[in-house]
This record gives sequence, C-alpha cells and structure tokens, in this order.
Amino acid sequence: MGRWAPDARGRLHQAAMELYTEHGYDGTTTADIAERAGLSERTYFRHFADKREVLFDSTDALQTLVLDGIAGADPAAAPLDAAAAGLGDGAALLQSFGQGPRHRAAVVAAHAELRERELAKMATLAQAVAGMLVARGSAEASAALTAETAVAVFRVAFDRWVADPDGPALPDVLAACFAELREVSARGR
Amino acid sequence: MGRWAPDARGRLHQAAMELYTEHGYDGTTTADIAERAGLSERTYFRHFADKREVLFDSTDALQTLVLDGIAGADPAAAPLDAAAAGLGDGAALLQSFGQGPRHRAAVVAAHAELRERELAKMATLAQAVAGMLVARGSAEASAALTAETAVAVFRVAFDRWVADPDGPALPDVLAACFAELREVSARGR
Repeated sequence: MGRWAPDARGRLHQAAMELYTEHGYDGTTTADIAERAGLSERTYFRHFADKREVLFDSTDALQTLVLDGIAGADPAAAPLDAAAAGLGDGAALLQSFGQGPRHRAAVVAAHAELRERELAKMATLAQAVAGMLVARGSAEASAALTAETAVAVFRVAFDRWVADPDGPALPDVLAACFAELREVSARGR
Repeated sequence: MGRWAPDARGRLHQAAMELYTEHGYDGTTTADIAERAGLSERTYFRHFADKREVLFDSTDALQTLVLDGIAGADPAAAPLDAAAAGLGDGAALLQSFGQGPRHRAAVVAAHAELRERELAKMATLAQAVAGMLVARGSAEASAALTAETAVAVFRVAFDRWVADPDGPALPDVLAACFAELREVSARGR
C-alpha cells in the first residue's frame, strides 16, 4: 500500500483498497476515495459507475484474459480443458498481483453488497466462457454446463488460495482443483 | 395468480409476484404489496426484512429440503451422489409449484438487484451443502468443491427447465445434467 500508481484508475483503486481496509466499506465515500487519490469526485465517476465498481477492475481484466486463453486453446481440446486453460491464464494474472487479491478478497468478504457484486461478476464470467465455448463449436446447453462448472472450480481454487498464503501458487491450486473435479465426478454412480 | 392463499406469508408472496409482474420491481413498494395482500406494511416487515426477501421464501424451503435429502442419503454414497440426491429432492419441490418458479425466474431475471440476491442465496446453499457433506465425513476442501460443482449443475438444470416449459420435469433435467457433468469431466485430459 502507499506505492505510487501513475494512472488515475490505479490510484483510485489503491485509495479505495486503503480506505475500505481502514474505515470499512460503509465508512468510506467516493469523495474520500477521490481525495485520497488526489483526484476530484467527478474523475472518480468518469472511471467507475458507483462506489463498488472500483474494486472490480481486476475482475474485468481477468475476464478478458480468460476469454483470450479459451480462444487460443488447442482447437482439438475438450471444452472443459479449453475452459481450464483460459482460467489458468486468469489465475496466473491474479498470482502476479502478489498479496493484492488476498487484501481485496478480505474487503469483499466483509460486506454483503460487495459479495453480491462479486458473485454477479463471476456469473457474467461464466456466461462469457460459455459464449466462447459455443464459438469453439460446443452446443449451447453443454457449453453452459461446462462453463458454470469450470467457474465454480475457479472460485473454489481462489478461496483455497486466499485461505493459504504460504501454500502453492494459484495456477497450481487451480490445476489441482480441476484434477479433483475429475476424480469427484468419476466416483459413485 | 389471484388464487386465494390462506397464510399471510403466502398472500404477500403472491401479491409481490403479481405486482412485480404488472409494474416491475422498481414500480412496486412494500406498501403496495401489503395493500394487495390485504395486510399492513408493518405485517410485511414482520415477515420479510426488505423488498427483495419476499421472493426468496421458496429458496429457503428449497435449502431445507436439499439438506434433509443429503442427510438422509445412503451413508455409503459418494459425496457428489449425496449432493445430487438432496438437490433432486429440491428439484421435486420446485416442480410441484407448477409454473410458479418460471414466473418467479422471469421477475428475478428482469432486475439486477434480484439477480444478485438470487446468486447470494445459491452461494449460501452451496456453503450449506458443503457443511452437510463435511458432517457426512468429507474433508472440508473436497466438500466445498463437490458442493459448488453440484449447485452449479443445479443452476444450469433450473435455467434449462425454465427455458423449456414443454420439456421434461425438473428432477429429470437435473439428473441429465449430472450425467452430463460426469461425461464432460471424463473427456479430455
């Protein structure tokens, strides 16, 4: 924290993270965030629609990378493997942010409104993944099932990674979770 | 719609469904709902915390039934099969409501706030399912993966069922989706 960030978006994001951590989400206004970032509130609203959205820049970046990864996956790969490859690229992005995603996760977990927005973003990601699988030739219904499953695995992997700061890197946790999915699905019936 | 419902909760739920369908979610107040139900707004807030919650009674009933189903599943059943059994009981409950869940889904789909609350309820369901799997002897991490996956399959099945009013019953759609999960997971790597 406190590291100089050159761009307005980055400064607003960093200021919001600091203030949400210091004073909580309810105790922080967009005016506070803008002031801490050395910018006007008007500038805040040029970049973000509301008080929540400033925390979800990384989610949008994640989605772009995941979709690119799926588009670039081996055309012969099974749909779940293509989804796993894209989500693996996303996991590598989050890993590259160091402890940032863990701090952010703590802020999100502490407020119902933020948790709901996070879930909505993950639902949007799953829909986008499904759309990309359809573009690769999957049937629509099957693409939805694969995408929702893959994003559920990603969320579980992310939660495990957040909970274990001394554990393996996120891409490795994710790969282990996909392996576990295959095992869990093969058991029983 | 318009069918007489004996209890206050049921009348409030029905009034809300009618008004949200007629005037939209934003165009309806809790006072409107209470009036249509022939009750006071105070009574509304004795039953529901806010304007959204009236639409989520069935979700709470669903969760109770799903958890009971998992608790009552064959102790020797694999975790995913136990989760599928519980969710199958939940699917049978929703099926017994006829077209009600489809009308409700249309109301929820039309408003971001309601979609977010629905996602939060499904996240709570997944956590509760994981807790029940742990109670049956699963390790915590593996229970989370199984539960999130199973609830993702349930959501996909529910969406398919909503989209196809002339198609098979929800428990059958759900069973087909679980079969598809096994197939999707077995393909590829």
